[in-house]
Amino acid sequence: MLSRLRSVEGSAAAACDAWPLMEAMYPICRSITGDGVRQTLDLVQQRLPLQRTEVPTGTAVFDWEIPKEWNIRDAYIADLQGRRVVDFREHNLHVVNYSTPVQRSMTLEELKPHLHSLPDKPDWIPYRTSYYREHWGFCLRHRDMERLGPGPFEVVIDSTLVPGSLTYAECVVAGRTQGEAIVYTHTCHPSLANDNLSGIAACAALAKELRGEHPRLTWRFVFGPGTIGSLAWLSRNEPRLGRVRAGLTVGLLGDGGALTYKRSRRGDRVTDRAAEHVLRGVARARLVDFEPYGYDERQFCSPGFDLPIGRLTRSPNGQYPEYHSSADNLDLLRPECFAESIRALADMIALLDENRALRNLSPKGEPRLGKRGLYGSLGGGAPGEFEHALLWVLSFSDGEHDLLAIAERSKLDFHLLARAAAALEDAGLARPLEEEPPAMKLGAHV
Amino acid sequence: MLSRLRSVEGSAAAACDAWPLMEAMYPICRSITGDGVRQTLDLVQQRLPLQRTEVPTGTAVFDWEIPKEWNIRDAYIADLQGRRVVDFREHNLHVVNYSTPVQRSMTLEELKPHLHSLPDKPDWIPYRTSYYREHWGFCLRHRDMERLGPGPFEVVIDSTLVPGSLTYAECVVAGRTQGEAIVYTHTCHPSLANDNLSGIAACAALAKELRGEHPRLTWRFVFGPGTIGSLAWLSRNEPRLGRVRAGLTVGLLGDGGALTYKRSRRGDRVTDRAAEHVLRGVARARLVDFEPYGYDERQFCSPGFDLPIGRLTRSPNGQYPEYHSSADNLDLLRPECFAESIRALADMIALLDENRALRNLSPKGEPRLGKRGLYGSLGGGAPGEFEHALLWVLSFSDGEHDLLAIAERSKLDFHLLARAAAALEDAGLARPLEEEPPAMKLGAHV
Amino acid sequence: MLSRLRSVEGSAAAACDAWPLMEAMYPICRSITGDGVRQTLDLVQQRLPLQRTEVPTGTAVFDWEIPKEWNIRDAYIADLQGRRVVDFREHNLHVVNYSTPVQRSMTLEELKPHLHSLPDKPDWIPYRTSYYREHWGFCLRHRDMERLGPGPFEVVIDSTLVPGSLTYAECVVAGRTQGEAIVYTHTCHPSLANDNLSGIAACAALAKELRGEHPRLTWRFVFGPGTIGSLAWLSRNEPRLGRVRAGLTVGLLGDGGALTYKRSRRGDRVTDRAAEHVLRGVARARLVDFEPYGYDERQFCSPGFDLPIGRLTRSPNGQYPEYHSSADNLDLLRPECFAESIRALADMIALLDENRALRNLSPKGEPRLGKRGLYGSLGGGAPGEFEHALLWVLSFSDGEHDLLAIAERSKLDFHLLARAAAALEDAGLARPLEEEPPAMKLGAHV
Repeated sequence: MLSRLRSVEGSAAAACDAWPLMEAMYPICRSITGDGVRQTLDLVQQRLPLQRTEVPTGTAVFDWEIPKEWNIRDAYIADLQGRRVVDFREHNLHVVNYSTPVQRSMTLEELKPHLHSLPDKPDWIPYRTSYYREHWGFCLRHRDMERLGPGPFEVVIDSTLVPGSLTYAECVVAGRTQGEAIVYTHTCHPSLANDNLSGIAACAALAKELRGEHPRLTWRFVFGPGTIGSLAWLSRNEPRLGRVRAGLTVGLLGDGGALTYKRSRRGDRVTDRAAEHVLRGVARARLVDFEPYGYDERQFCSPGFDLPIGRLTRSPNGQYPEYHSSADNLDLLRPECFAESIRALADMIALLDENRALRNLSPKGEPRLGKRGLYGSLGGGAPGEFEHALLWVLSFSDGEHDLLAIAERSKLDFHLLARAAAALEDAGLARPLEEEPPAMKLGAHV
Repeated sequence: MLSRLRSVEGSAAAACDAWPLMEAMYPICRSITGDGVRQTLDLVQQRLPLQRTEVPTGTAVFDWEIPKEWNIRDAYIADLQGRRVVDFREHNLHVVNYSTPVQRSMTLEELKPHLHSLPDKPDWIPYRTSYYREHWGFCLRHRDMERLGPGPFEVVIDSTLVPGSLTYAECVVAGRTQGEAIVYTHTCHPSLANDNLSGIAACAALAKELRGEHPRLTWRFVFGPGTIGSLAWLSRNEPRLGRVRAGLTVGLLGDGGALTYKRSRRGDRVTDRAAEHVLRGVARARLVDFEPYGYDERQFCSPGFDLPIGRLTRSPNGQYPEYHSSADNLDLLRPECFAESIRALADMIALLDENRALRNLSPKGEPRLGKRGLYGSLGGGAPGEFEHALLWVLSFSDGEHDLLAIAERSKLDFHLLARAAAALEDAGLARPLEEEPPAMKLGAHV
Repeated sequence: MLSRLRSVEGSAAAACDAWPLMEAMYPICRSITGDGVRQTLDLVQQRLPLQRTEVPTGTAVFDWEIPKEWNIRDAYIADLQGRRVVDFREHNLHVVNYSTPVQRSMTLEELKPHLHSLPDKPDWIPYRTSYYREHWGFCLRHRDMERLGPGPFEVVIDSTLVPGSLTYAECVVAGRTQGEAIVYTHTCHPSLANDNLSGIAACAALAKELRGEHPRLTWRFVFGPGTIGSLAWLSRNEPRLGRVRAGLTVGLLGDGGALTYKRSRRGDRVTDRAAEHVLRGVARARLVDFEPYGYDERQFCSPGFDLPIGRLTRSPNGQYPEYHSSADNLDLLRPECFAESIRALADMIALLDENRALRNLSPKGEPRLGKRGLYGSLGGGAPGEFEHALLWVLSFSDGEHDLLAIAERSKLDFHLLARAAAALEDAGLARPLEEEPPAMKLGAHV
């Protein structure tokens, strides 16, 4: 499964292929609502069928409600000569995201509370938002801030904040069983490349490839805004959550940092074990424990849902210098790192999809494999690797171990064990636990 | 809570304040029953209101019964010249505690089976008892024993061993919830300072201070004799034991040894976890596993009660040279060590009292903290420490973690988390589990 | 228990005593059925009463059935001069075990697919079998194979493969309780000494000695063929398996390798814990995790039985150069190693037999040991080792710990604790859990 993306060559080709998409998405001013998100999804949809959902302003989602929709056409601070000293058209980070409209003449003194800069990074524009308190402001290079005269300035934000809707989209790859898996990536950041065009492009590549397979689980790739987007998705999919066997939130997949898997809240779920298994083979990769700050894993892992969902990034949020600034641009992305991220994700998805717990249907003693053509007939010498894999799967198909647990314990290759499991299923000697009552299924997947 | 005693200055002042009490208690001949215990409690009661209990001789307490009451006025061994060569009035350790009355003329040969000394510590008087077999004897310096002539000697023990009662006392500081905690210290040792005037004086100081607070738990400071005293207390409080959330037996708090916490029988109870958390910050401090020998933790942790009660001492019983001898006197006590013991106990009590498990009342996704004034409104930058504490408490208020577990996992300060928990309770976002059915409460405190 | 075999001298004497038995068994051509097995059991029966079972050909045992019975009188490859170039009478490994009859003239070219040798060990005859596919063949030294001319050869195997029965035998030493334990050793290998005359002889020695004791458990020493023998035993003893508390498969006990205990499938059963306890004191000994390849532990530990049965060998199967070849002969056996194996087995059997979980019948506080003569009456000094053992057994006789767990935790000697447990049982203060309902028993033995 996903064998092309799991190879070095295939993942490099997919990374190459993703570059024009990221370049096209980069200039768009995205936010948690608005046309910027829709235009972004249009670009993705050129590669991938998407199901879109519009959730109207005011809709209750748990403790929250969908905010007004924000759109922006222009914004600037101009001096007396009409020269734009801060210009949204030059960089969309210049406006505090979700700023209310303004058109006013102001002195520097009056304007200052609305200006944000990074004194220790004077050449970078910071990224600021104000989604849930009506507010406006500008972000600018500290170097430029210091050059501002006393004013007065003409201050204009040509935005709208009115009832509308929040937009998210899904690419659903249907599976052969009732189980489901989620891959969520946030789409709300404006011109920031690693955070999170890299996540959108990686998901598009993975979803596109997976559509050519027949997975065991139904895989839902969800493209939505941070926090309110995952909350909206959860609120509209709550009855289905009992089917979720695994999942990931992904983003920040292109920088030069080490691959970093953040465990689910419980830390011992199948996604966590799969990450440990896969990342053991990736140079520099590391696993960190859950903390309740970060991206949408915060919502998926909240105690009321407690889903088996971890997070894969390279540098985590806030842990690279360019984070949430104009320096997080396309130049920050390293193709070989982005390709490695795709490869690791493909490995994890393939493993999570093929993983299953089986029930040994002939559990009293070993079944006679020889009479089924599964075991060499001449005794006295040692059996081969596939015969060992058959014995391991039979021995631990006891309702307490899945194939991943057997791989960890036997040190045999996971995919060899999956082939042995398939042979035993074909021979009628084992059956996936998912065909048993739900109580067993849950036990086997915890 | 207990902030004065938790400071270096405050605990030093409390140690100073305890000295006159220990000096006043030192000369009294205590035992497991009798007027010596009552006089000792009188001294404590000058500082602290106590509820006293007298349990009559013959009362059944589990497999035991309350013994006869023992009192002693005088005892000596005199030579032919009437000179007291061993004199109870010189040191009350000279008589085997609970000795039956005797008045007889005896040769050294006849007397010898009744004499106890320490050949390898010839200047120290040993401490010996015979509570449950009627017997009499004298303890003396080995140096003096060797000087005894052949006799005959006049041997007198002017004691009584008759029906009476066993005395213990409690200082109860009422709490705001149904939960209770126990601090037990033994009161039965005669002129031994570290073991256990230090325990009595420390409990008096802590109980006095706690009476000025409004604790969550009801704290019972119990002053009673070893073994039969805790058994008597347990037998009269059995219906209430289900409320006990935490507890300690304490003693030996003034010597120069390292603070030593002995775990409860199960070793993973909340008191054990609190000790580990607090003692991590105390130089030289160590934690040792439970063994069924020691002080009254033997009774509290017996399998029929199995209470979450550990023990705090400095040197454990039997592990300092002066143990159970006349060398365990007031000079052995080191004020700075005694103050450190008080400080550690105050830290543990404060932590155990503030610790609680909460139920997140808005567990599906994160609640919107911003609209309740609990979260900064301008996004894009990192949240502060208090906001992190709020997220941690919400995320792990799942019925399986208490604040101490969250502190251990998050590395955030316990008291910061307790403040965050209070803010969430005030905002109606969380509720202590103690207001839920008992089955949940137990789970949360294991 | 088994004190003679647990001593260095006694185990050395037992090893000496076993040598003539192994010498007598060595030349016999054993297989999974047939007269070779019966002759072998006759030799054992000269030392030990055995109950024999014959299971007819065709009997279903789980997924298998009892094969036809195989017997062989002669076999050879002769050249044109009638000279036997390969001769069964010279070494019974020369014939592939379970070869069908043949009498034919063949060229070397035709014969080659039926010849097996070890090119990298040209002086050894390999051991090969073909139990479940009708086949014939010869095994020979590679050196001899290379010398064979082009033929033709007269090829004769004078064997029979016809309906008959499979033979296994048991020595049962009856115990005082309902619990049982199994020691299984395979009897199917022809002239191979370490694998497994050493296992047969060690079991004979242990069973003989144990018959002089009154064990707590009923011990069943089972002598049967590999795989189909243990399956046959299991199928005829299935209703009794719930009583099995512990057990071992044994073999390969005489080579110079380190003692090796292979854990049961679960790895935390009482047999596993006993092995860890005993082997800690044996130089070079090691414990390895279960894998579903090896000897009859494969059947006992299959998930449908999941018995608490581990395996003791010296070198494991396949891990010494002489394994499954004519070099595994009597010269390979080292008496001091064989004696060490007997000693370790005797230690494990004694420990498993004496181990039990008790219920403290006076669990509220400590019972008053003094009034029962179990505790010194003069207090103030430290109690002795036996008194400590009493306190440990009382404290942890809580339904969750057996004596072995108490020994591990207390660091006290297992047999001292067993004596303390007996004293408490005699005093009516504790009762073995086996006299309580089965649910408790299972919990205590997991």
